[in-house]
Amino acid sequence: MALLKTRIVAPSLMLQTSFRALRRPNLSHALLSLSRTISSTSPAAHPRSPHTLVDWRTMAPQDISKYLRQTHDKVFEHNKAWAAEKCSKDPEFFAHLSAGQNPEYLWIGCSDSRIPAEQITGLEAGDVFVHRNIANLVCNTDLNAMSVITYAVEHLKVKHIVVCGHYGCGGVKAAMTPKDMGILNPWLRNIRDVYRLHEKELDAIADEETRYNRLVELNVMEQCRNVIKSASVQKSYAENKFPIVHGWVFGFHDGLLKDLNLDFEKVLADIQKIYNLTES
Amino acid sequence: MALLKTRIVAPSLMLQTSFRALRRPNLSHALLSLSRTISSTSPAAHPRSPHTLVDWRTMAPQDISKYLRQTHDKVFEHNKAWAAEKCSKDPEFFAHLSAGQNPEYLWIGCSDSRIPAEQITGLEAGDVFVHRNIANLVCNTDLNAMSVITYAVEHLKVKHIVVCGHYGCGGVKAAMTPKDMGILNPWLRNIRDVYRLHEKELDAIADEETRYNRLVELNVMEQCRNVIKSASVQKSYAENKFPIVHGWVFGFHDGLLKDLNLDFEKVLADIQKIYNLTES
Amino acid sequence: MALLKTRIVAPSLMLQTSFRALRRPNLSHALLSLSRTISSTSPAAHPRSPHTLVDWRTMAPQDISKYLRQTHDKVFEHNKAWAAEKCSKDPEFFAHLSAGQNPEYLWIGCSDSRIPAEQITGLEAGDVFVHRNIANLVCNTDLNAMSVITYAVEHLKVKHIVVCGHYGCGGVKAAMTPKDMGILNPWLRNIRDVYRLHEKELDAIADEETRYNRLVELNVMEQCRNVIKSASVQKSYAENKFPIVHGWVFGFHDGLLKDLNLDFEKVLADIQKIYNLTES
Amino acid sequence: MALLKTRIVAPSLMLQTSFRALRRPNLSHALLSLSRTISSTSPAAHPRSPHTLVDWRTMAPQDISKYLRQTHDKVFEHNKAWAAEKCSKDPEFFAHLSAGQNPEYLWIGCSDSRIPAEQITGLEAGDVFVHRNIANLVCNTDLNAMSVITYAVEHLKVKHIVVCGHYGCGGVKAAMTPKDMGILNPWLRNIRDVYRLHEKELDAIADEETRYNRLVELNVMEQCRNVIKSASVQKSYAENKFPIVHGWVFGFHDGLLKDLNLDFEKVLADIQKIYNLTES
Repeated sequence: MALLKTRIVAPSLMLQTSFRALRRPNLSHALLSLSRTISSTSPAAHPRSPHTLVDWRTMAPQDISKYLRQTHDKVFEHNKAWAAEKCSKDPEFFAHLSAGQNPEYLWIGCSDSRIPAEQITGLEAGDVFVHRNIANLVCNTDLNAMSVITYAVEHLKVKHIVVCGHYGCGGVKAAMTPKDMGILNPWLRNIRDVYRLHEKELDAIADEETRYNRLVELNVMEQCRNVIKSASVQKSYAENKFPIVHGWVFGFHDGLLKDLNLDFEKVLADIQKIYNLTES
Repeated sequence: MALLKTRIVAPSLMLQTSFRALRRPNLSHALLSLSRTISSTSPAAHPRSPHTLVDWRTMAPQDISKYLRQTHDKVFEHNKAWAAEKCSKDPEFFAHLSAGQNPEYLWIGCSDSRIPAEQITGLEAGDVFVHRNIANLVCNTDLNAMSVITYAVEHLKVKHIVVCGHYGCGGVKAAMTPKDMGILNPWLRNIRDVYRLHEKELDAIADEETRYNRLVELNVMEQCRNVIKSASVQKSYAENKFPIVHGWVFGFHDGLLKDLNLDFEKVLADIQKIYNLTES
Repeated sequence: MALLKTRIVAPSLMLQTSFRALRRPNLSHALLSLSRTISSTSPAAHPRSPHTLVDWRTMAPQDISKYLRQTHDKVFEHNKAWAAEKCSKDPEFFAHLSAGQNPEYLWIGCSDSRIPAEQITGLEAGDVFVHRNIANLVCNTDLNAMSVITYAVEHLKVKHIVVCGHYGCGGVKAAMTPKDMGILNPWLRNIRDVYRLHEKELDAIADEETRYNRLVELNVMEQCRNVIKSASVQKSYAENKFPIVHGWVFGFHDGLLKDLNLDFEKVLADIQKIYNLTES
Repeated sequence: MALLKTRIVAPSLMLQTSFRALRRPNLSHALLSLSRTISSTSPAAHPRSPHTLVDWRTMAPQDISKYLRQTHDKVFEHNKAWAAEKCSKDPEFFAHLSAGQNPEYLWIGCSDSRIPAEQITGLEAGDVFVHRNIANLVCNTDLNAMSVITYAVEHLKVKHIVVCGHYGCGGVKAAMTPKDMGILNPWLRNIRDVYRLHEKELDAIADEETRYNRLVELNVMEQCRNVIKSASVQKSYAENKFPIVHGWVFGFHDGLLKDLNLDFEKVLADIQKIYNLTES
């Protein structure tokens, strides 16, 4: 019983074919105690796993409020422990951090909670400038992403720009579905545009899962192209021989990064036939 | 000498008042060996620290290319080690990860490389949906951020939305400077709009550093307001009593998160005087 | 009966408090003949006006198709007549037009069909560069409007930038209503932001119509401010003493333009306290 | 001498291969009088035409200021005359205008000053909802254009959506040029994307002018496709058999509209293979 975990679960998780609670070994006793109280009265308790799932629709308002308070406070406990540990290992750690950043990587990845960029790459605080959005998209008229790229290239002089997608991407899945997603339509349409560019190749793939995974890869490659279309990347590379743009895909099943081996020099030359902004 | 580190440094780092190399205990021997070769011929070696800084402008093209290759390969080494470690600690870790995500947090933070959201909060893979951009801005006509918020609230049913800023933010600094930043102007103007909303309070602060830090905090509070203006947040809260929106600030000097204690209920009521989208 | 007009009408016109058909003296005989046929079988015929309104929901598919074809062809007839008339009045008219444009005005107005910018201002082909959107908004992160402004100022060297709103604006009305407008929410939120900036003044106005009209004016003034925030306007004015930014409002009841008498020099100075992008 | 016209001219007009003043028969005596004064001292007077061009760089500040005042006041004179004329022809004209709008057309055209939508189509006040931007682009993540389309289709129930381009478009020209256009890059990149989609066809056209004109047409066709990708258009058409989307091109040399004869039913079916948002 010491391992029992409770978690409030959404009644329907669109875009996810299946769902199982993640193991959360770092939940505190305070939360555990609440969990037990709630789970004992909940019909949604999950008998097959050590994690007990609770449907928030059956919770009393004060229990929801309590739960929200506790999950909130938890983060501050974690943060204090992290800061103390960093300090004990390296008393100058935060002095160095305060001094400024000099990252060599720009990471453009998916917002998906299962891809903590720094952890899976082993990069430390200070090493990687990060932009994460739904389906790791780089849209040329999106000032959010374009500001990130411009700042990273022109001011931080990053050496690498990584666009990292992942198999099993909910955003890519949604874009393969004939469905009105409301305000999400315009964003997801960027992925449908990728499909259109590679319609023949994709339509020739009979197996849906394989086609879906291929779209994930092609989406990464197209977003790399979009990065390369920007004036800042083209100009910096002409002058400095960096940044290099990379396309990677993360797999949940083994935790490994796959390099799509984008031939940067070749793609750049290809793109500059139409998108040359270097005036050379 | 075993601790000697080399790092390619940008000749000028705009927006940073000072610069010092970060300690990088995780650099591999392969890179170290390159570093030594380069540093021995570099005039930019930094005598005051164990990190040796190299100006890429003095590097031969083949050295730049070699350096880029090695820093790239490094990440894949790290990734393999991380995956192996996760697997050895919990053989089912990646099976759980594949099953889907069920994050309780949406984190809207700065792209700054020194704020790895998951590490400073102790949240695990699967716990936090992440959007990071320059100066943690939520602009209501920015479909990038609005898609993230809508998806997180309507489809993932997150319980908490955190807007996390940080003292020493280069974006906020830039927005206090009379300077044409080109394509970055429109994005940074969002911060100037925050200044305008709080002009009296800010102008009354004589010390520039204090005024700057206060703008960092006010910027977080205003971005929280922008989150609360969205229909998805208002509707979900009316129905479910979540998500709760929080404003936090991270300090590099001590690694601690500061809760700005945004009174969510009060701010929501205040905003709905003008921005009520719930038709109630 | 010669004046009888028929018009397909939408069953519900959201955001319009009342509706009456516009007189259309320029409808052709072809359309008129169709109109008669349709109106004779339609229960929606409007007895109080010479215009007969037809509800498209009661029309047979082939009638809809026929109506669409005829309204389409009409435009081409009009266009030919217009071109012939221009040519007969001035045989060199189109040669001049082909030679290039040199407009002195940039007009930023509402998409509303009742405000044909060139007609109400008496400006000719070649005189005014035009951007029209819902509620004549200038949002600093909107590359559509910002591209128009930049191009007009830097490349066309316009002398005047006019933001022209109008009383009775459906967009402004919608933004005063507690209602989820779906994908229109983010755009209309810009107007709610104007309300927030002037909350005290607006809340003090008891009469709703008067408050609404005042919001129309304040919206124009704020959009003028947004224009002035742009680097291109600030830089051009510092160098050339133009463009000048004007705020106007059009009234349907009398067809007259009202100058809000924006004090350009004063507003510019005011804005540059926070938004100075001229580095001076 | 009564026909003498003066016009302040920009010293360099980028993107325009040639420039000649337009005939302006509607300039008032007040301006004429200023013109004479200025032209008499200006070395830039244009001897070959009745229009006298003045370089503003040679003007005294008070003359610039005077000129700006007069061109401004002019518009108000024109406006008063227009309102009076409308009223005299139809005393109820403005009462009808106040009653609301019921346009059957949405016009998406270029901001170019030489294409006054209402005049060239013969459409009256109340007939056509208008959006104009640089190069008549419809970008799916541009909330400016998407709000216009959504409002026009869902609330105004327009019957026709016209995307109208024009030969000699400066924006299209700029997008064919290897040049850094600063903040205009992202917007113009939409046109380069059109080029990429039709690279083979365009590269096969040897004559630059012909290739350029073909890109103008292909750009219109692609923007029509973008309109058709929107959920509002797809849903309305499924339900109502309208709106119909049209692609037109305007020619300055003859003032005529050319219908590109987009096969709406076919393009819609084609698009819905990938972009179906109707859930049917």
